[in-house]
Amino acid sequence: MRRMAKARALYASTDRSADALYLARTHIPDPFLAVDVDGRRTGVFGALEFGRMYASGAFAAVVALEDLYLEAKAAFGAEPVPGDLLAVLARRMNLAEVTVGADFPSLVLRQAERRGLAVTVEEGVLFPERAVKTPGEIAEIALGNVSAAAGIAEAAAMLKAATVRPGGTLELAGEPLTSERVRREIEIACLKKGGWAMETIVAGGDQACDPHCEGEGILRANELIVVDVFPRRAVSGYFGDMTRTFLKSRPTERQEHLVATVAQGQQLALSQIRAGADGRTIHFAVTEYFEKMGYPTERRPERSVGFFHGLGHCVGLEIHELPRMNRTGSPLAEGNVITVEPGLYYPGLGGCRIEDVVVVRRDGCEMISSAPYEWVIP
Amino acid sequence: MRRMAKARALYASTDRSADALYLARTHIPDPFLAVDVDGRRTGVFGALEFGRMYASGAFAAVVALEDLYLEAKAAFGAEPVPGDLLAVLARRMNLAEVTVGADFPSLVLRQAERRGLAVTVEEGVLFPERAVKTPGEIAEIALGNVSAAAGIAEAAAMLKAATVRPGGTLELAGEPLTSERVRREIEIACLKKGGWAMETIVAGGDQACDPHCEGEGILRANELIVVDVFPRRAVSGYFGDMTRTFLKSRPTERQEHLVATVAQGQQLALSQIRAGADGRTIHFAVTEYFEKMGYPTERRPERSVGFFHGLGHCVGLEIHELPRMNRTGSPLAEGNVITVEPGLYYPGLGGCRIEDVVVVRRDGCEMISSAPYEWVIP
Repeated sequence: MRRMAKARALYASTDRSADALYLARTHIPDPFLAVDVDGRRTGVFGALEFGRMYASGAFAAVVALEDLYLEAKAAFGAEPVPGDLLAVLARRMNLAEVTVGADFPSLVLRQAERRGLAVTVEEGVLFPERAVKTPGEIAEIALGNVSAAAGIAEAAAMLKAATVRPGGTLELAGEPLTSERVRREIEIACLKKGGWAMETIVAGGDQACDPHCEGEGILRANELIVVDVFPRRAVSGYFGDMTRTFLKSRPTERQEHLVATVAQGQQLALSQIRAGADGRTIHFAVTEYFEKMGYPTERRPERSVGFFHGLGHCVGLEIHELPRMNRTGSPLAEGNVITVEPGLYYPGLGGCRIEDVVVVRRDGCEMISSAPYEWVIP
Repeated sequence: MRRMAKARALYASTDRSADALYLARTHIPDPFLAVDVDGRRTGVFGALEFGRMYASGAFAAVVALEDLYLEAKAAFGAEPVPGDLLAVLARRMNLAEVTVGADFPSLVLRQAERRGLAVTVEEGVLFPERAVKTPGEIAEIALGNVSAAAGIAEAAAMLKAATVRPGGTLELAGEPLTSERVRREIEIACLKKGGWAMETIVAGGDQACDPHCEGEGILRANELIVVDVFPRRAVSGYFGDMTRTFLKSRPTERQEHLVATVAQGQQLALSQIRAGADGRTIHFAVTEYFEKMGYPTERRPERSVGFFHGLGHCVGLEIHELPRMNRTGSPLAEGNVITVEPGLYYPGLGGCRIEDVVVVRRDGCEMISSAPYEWVIP
């Protein structure tokens, strides 16, 4: 039996939808309709975008929005809404049914169904082909990490230039050195390298033990400081993602051991990543290594400790993509681009995370991020 | 008859949804459920967010995600999905029906309906109360415009420092002065003032006549350059929005007249804005003034000329909010915060747009943006 071609449809702007950006490959500020049938893509654009989308070749067929609008008006006798346009487009393309993503707008779904179009909502990923990156995409993610590394370097430079006040708080240029201040300078450094870093984490002490905490207030000597930077390339929308942990002044033995263990955990993961390897297996190998080194993971509703987040997630036009290396992770494929970010968190001792980005290759992995690992700042 | 309470529901992260940010008033990176019944709001949060959302008071009731999950599992006998949780929450709250926004995720809609919940999809705005801003919101938008003004000032400073090469191209510090270079420095200046400016427009010559064109390539003397900056406050998510038009070197009489007419058009609009005034009427008053001054508006599929965009849009947690001042605009209300941005565009002559932001008051309007109007850069 011949396989029925699956028609995948979206209605979104590239600002809101990574799928829309994946298809259009350029910034489209207003929502547009697109349909993919076995990789052959049709896009609907108004006069403002038609010419450049036609020239770009991102879509095999470019339909004039104004034509579709007139056709829908003739068919339904009212001012067409987006779902009407999708129904007319499907009819033109001889499609009785389309599949949309989980985040497809409910209003457009209802409108299209009202016109008799059958719409299936995909529970998983609408464009799984996004998981395998092209060389061009890998280059963009690597540049995202160049931007991230500039941010990390800025944080290290600020910590180095800072002085320690009596009581242990940090000061720079006569002003308290806060998480907020370091974050701002990191983000400026990232932007100078073409990347939008937002929600950057600069968290010291126990703050770093809560992975949703971006960090606030004055930073202190003798406390581990987690710096996690994930800039998005302004020209392309691809993300970089990098984390380093710093300490101003001399570490205690327990801090030394914690950081060395996380670094070793990352090496262990890197040695196991290859096409076909299972993300779940690698995640648990690192968890067990930590346990063996004296760092158990305990998940509690109020506050988990140890290594209680995933070892890594793929990265691309979204910061978190599949497959992942975590407790429910799945096999890795050649061309996946994935973070490797073990961490350990114990209130009182502090948090440490080290994160780089690799491309999964047939026989191993290739790191595409580069920044020093020196964590002790004199 | 007692009015039936309308229950408005959302499932979104604050990164993707301005409604979610409006309700939570803080950054929540993962999608969450919330239901508003006549202004009384219930939010569902997991252990990581529960404490801080409970303390913040943004929600009258905070439900533990873990409890709801167990209840849904008991009710439906499977691993609960978000729509199951919404159905259980609605039952807890005695709601037979909920209303969701146009952009509510289709998958969650289907899941909730499968559990017997009636879901209405709102065709208009789900939270129309967002249109009237509180003093705190107005202050944030004003700070957004402080950030925008810093970006505009940076652009003016770069143009001032630039030299004119034979042939008319601009050069700064020995390198060609491009739209891309000015855009980057504008965005850094905005970020230093706490605002994320993205997709900033720096468009010279005929490029400025296409409102979707961000501008690219080397800037030139003797050509009008439109600079449109709309930074989003990092701490709150509120936008500023400001446009100035510049010219390096001496203007021609036609350029002088064009810019003076746009500036007068803005003054005309400012004189008419007050609570109860009609956005459509003000838009057409400016259009007619332009026509009278010799600048007709012609809308053509390939390329419109004249004043072919709206006079203004409200601004808040989204860059474009209702009501608007345009061809289909509606009455303005006290507390609306709206841009006033007339523009004229004629390929060959160039484009000019001037944009500020005002608060609509009972008897007029109050400008909350501030930047010089000097457009001729020697």
